[in-house]
Amino acid sequence: MKLRNNAIRLSSVQLIVLFYFSAVFISTVLLSLPFAHRPGVEWHFIDALFTAVSAISVTGLTVVSTVDTFSVPGVFILAFVLQFGGIGIMTLGTFIWLVMGKKIGLKERQLISTDQNRGTLSGLVQLMKQILSLILLFELVGTVILGLYFHNYFPTWGEAFYQGFFASVSATTNAGFDITGESLIPFAQDYFVQTINIILLILGAIGFPVLIEIKDFMFSFKSASHYRFSLFTKLTTFTFFALIVIGALLILLLEKNHFFAGKSWHESFFYALFQSVTTRNGGLATMDINEFTVATQLVISVLMFIGASPSSVGGGIRTTTFAISLLTIFFFAKGHSNVKIFKRELDQDDIRKSFVVVFTAVLLTGSAIVFLSAVEPFPVMAIIFEVCSAFGTTGLSLGITPELSTVGKVTIIFMMFIGRIGIISFLFLLRGKVEGDHYHYPKERVIIG
Amino acid sequence: MKLRNNAIRLSSVQLIVLFYFSAVFISTVLLSLPFAHRPGVEWHFIDALFTAVSAISVTGLTVVSTVDTFSVPGVFILAFVLQFGGIGIMTLGTFIWLVMGKKIGLKERQLISTDQNRGTLSGLVQLMKQILSLILLFELVGTVILGLYFHNYFPTWGEAFYQGFFASVSATTNAGFDITGESLIPFAQDYFVQTINIILLILGAIGFPVLIEIKDFMFSFKSASHYRFSLFTKLTTFTFFALIVIGALLILLLEKNHFFAGKSWHESFFYALFQSVTTRNGGLATMDINEFTVATQLVISVLMFIGASPSSVGGGIRTTTFAISLLTIFFFAKGHSNVKIFKRELDQDDIRKSFVVVFTAVLLTGSAIVFLSAVEPFPVMAIIFEVCSAFGTTGLSLGITPELSTVGKVTIIFMMFIGRIGIISFLFLLRGKVEGDHYHYPKERVIIG
Ligand SMILES: [K+]
Ligand SMILES: [K+]
Repeated sequence: MKLRNNAIRLSSVQLIVLFYFSAVFISTVLLSLPFAHRPGVEWHFIDALFTAVSAISVTGLTVVSTVDTFSVPGVFILAFVLQFGGIGIMTLGTFIWLVMGKKIGLKERQLISTDQNRGTLSGLVQLMKQILSLILLFELVGTVILGLYFHNYFPTWGEAFYQGFFASVSATTNAGFDITGESLIPFAQDYFVQTINIILLILGAIGFPVLIEIKDFMFSFKSASHYRFSLFTKLTTFTFFALIVIGALLILLLEKNHFFAGKSWHESFFYALFQSVTTRNGGLATMDINEFTVATQLVISVLMFIGASPSSVGGGIRTTTFAISLLTIFFFAKGHSNVKIFKRELDQDDIRKSFVVVFTAVLLTGSAIVFLSAVEPFPVMAIIFEVCSAFGTTGLSLGITPELSTVGKVTIIFMMFIGRIGIISFLFLLRGKVEGDHYHYPKERVIIG
Repeated sequence: MKLRNNAIRLSSVQLIVLFYFSAVFISTVLLSLPFAHRPGVEWHFIDALFTAVSAISVTGLTVVSTVDTFSVPGVFILAFVLQFGGIGIMTLGTFIWLVMGKKIGLKERQLISTDQNRGTLSGLVQLMKQILSLILLFELVGTVILGLYFHNYFPTWGEAFYQGFFASVSATTNAGFDITGESLIPFAQDYFVQTINIILLILGAIGFPVLIEIKDFMFSFKSASHYRFSLFTKLTTFTFFALIVIGALLILLLEKNHFFAGKSWHESFFYALFQSVTTRNGGLATMDINEFTVATQLVISVLMFIGASPSSVGGGIRTTTFAISLLTIFFFAKGHSNVKIFKRELDQDDIRKSFVVVFTAVLLTGSAIVFLSAVEPFPVMAIIFEVCSAFGTTGLSLGITPELSTVGKVTIIFMMFIGRIGIISFLFLLRGKVEGDHYHYPKERVIIG
């Protein structure tokens, strides 16, 4: 590992953690304001903390029913927190991508008009403006479409737009919270609502650098045919959609004779597609995942564990990490140590980093699963599912999260935190003072596997 | 990856697979001989194949009760097959270690007096002689001690030595088969029998190269203090015993208020120690693992997944793979890309190989777990356990293996095969003609995790 960027990198991680902790603190306070709650609601500190962490990390796991707990002002506060969390995360993720630009290559850095010379703070502000305007645009369009359409479901325009607004914010930020009381289950037969949600979910989870490159591509009229997408964009976008397709196909296959028995092809198709898309990071669902078989629940757990694109609102090990790990195995089996894809070669540092992420993630989620199995009375399938959902900051649930003990809730909070900041940042956090690596010992080979 | 040794490596893998398939074929025939069965036993081809694969890979998972199915001659045939499997595996594993000697270093190669110039076949024969004599020595000592001692349990000397012989063979080869009908449960209170078994299990699973180095160390009278163990021996032995200690401590901790409630400290200690040792590869047990909590069953699954030392009778990802992966994360978090341990530096190729093994193993066991969940009606915990047991060629069971459908049994057979030959060999098997890797594309960085 080259140590060149350590100083910058370390402070970036500190920036994320600082943002995360202060945002959680403020959110805990905001969500605990008396007028944010419906009358008669009991409000415990651990539930406030859990909801704040879940909202800031846009996970969407809940220990209390959002609709039964929060008043209308409370729902607006929650929507604000989701905004703040989603945009904050995207901004910081992308900012680090820019700061690391020297390693990533000049080209990508120039994709965004952030002038590094003006100093990092003004660059950060400008970047946040760009992301904010893009996200707000998505949310506005989503609110208008869903608000108008929801007049079919809700008696007043006010109620329709209130629901449309929250649904749009929750989908775009991939927050997974709902004020219907049962996620998108009321719209299980409404393919229009689902399609709008799918589009918003994908726009939020596909990663800001990808969005910027697509924007650039669309506005480069004269030379659109010569526009070159970065390797990162190609890799993450391909993996993102491949996971959605494979996930949907697996769900269709595994549930053919179970949940989909007796259902029409278009019903089955939309159930499978929506639940596959939502595993990237959405966390919304058009059904109770408990109705799926254990095999499908395991597949969904794995998909959540993989998660979304880097520099998006999503968590997990990230699409690029998964893709690079798979590619490395494939090329290793072919006898090559260089991984070639899209006419580019991966850097060995990125390969090593991917494996570090995968192995650490497996260790951490595995430990959390064992720990929760020891302290909680729930079936191991439900525990695996909730842990993967927390690490992927997905927010799908088999329903045990509200029943967890305090120590169980803290474990899920911890997993949401790690899923959110990412394994690499987490490992950098653990790092104390970086020692030089200037001495060497003789190399010696050992037998592997 | 350097391609220097590809030709040799590929033929080594072919050698293993050739050995494995012909050994399984012969064993299936031998175990199907009519006089090998007790009167009235129904014998299906899939059960014959399963038993042969389990015996040749010294796994010990069973679809039929050994004691109820096999006659006395049948038990001797089984013992022979275990011998053949255990010694064959150790020989081939070590042989490849020697053939790869050029990469591993001259020193280790010289540890065994195999003269490469005499050609690989005579080297193989000589090596097999060494391993055979060592294993037979262990088994003979084990048989004598257990046979004499078992007179306390069995009415005749004949029965005592029959039981002692099989127990000794099963422990030394880490086969995990038993003719008591209930593993070592009859000896749950007998610490002497357990201690002898633990010693034999460790001698079988610690790896032949380690045994050879220990022998060398003991016979190098003049310069014992200057004897340098290889990095491989230090790393694998340390990890081997660390896993046993950590496993026992975790079992003690997790079962303190459950299985160990009301049991004396020495009873608890031996239960925890034996069950921890047996996860390396033994597969024998002094209790029904179903009596442990789910958390302990998960821990045992992970320990089996890790498995034993390379070039031993054991399977799994192997101790070295696990150790190197952990060390790499640790040094990565410190900001170093070089991994230093025991005053030596690991080769980057070995690091990459370790991660390839871990990731492939996670993918394969994960897929097997999902697949079995889809086709079998059993709880996911039991499926996770049996798959890890098969991949680790451990043989512990929560009892569902005999109930599996044919396609389920084939899945377990496949996992035993991969666990046995190892992930690296498996990947080399998949490799077709090795293409040159002489062209290059520009490098481009991507965002990870
Ligand atoms: K989410
Ligand atoms: K075994």
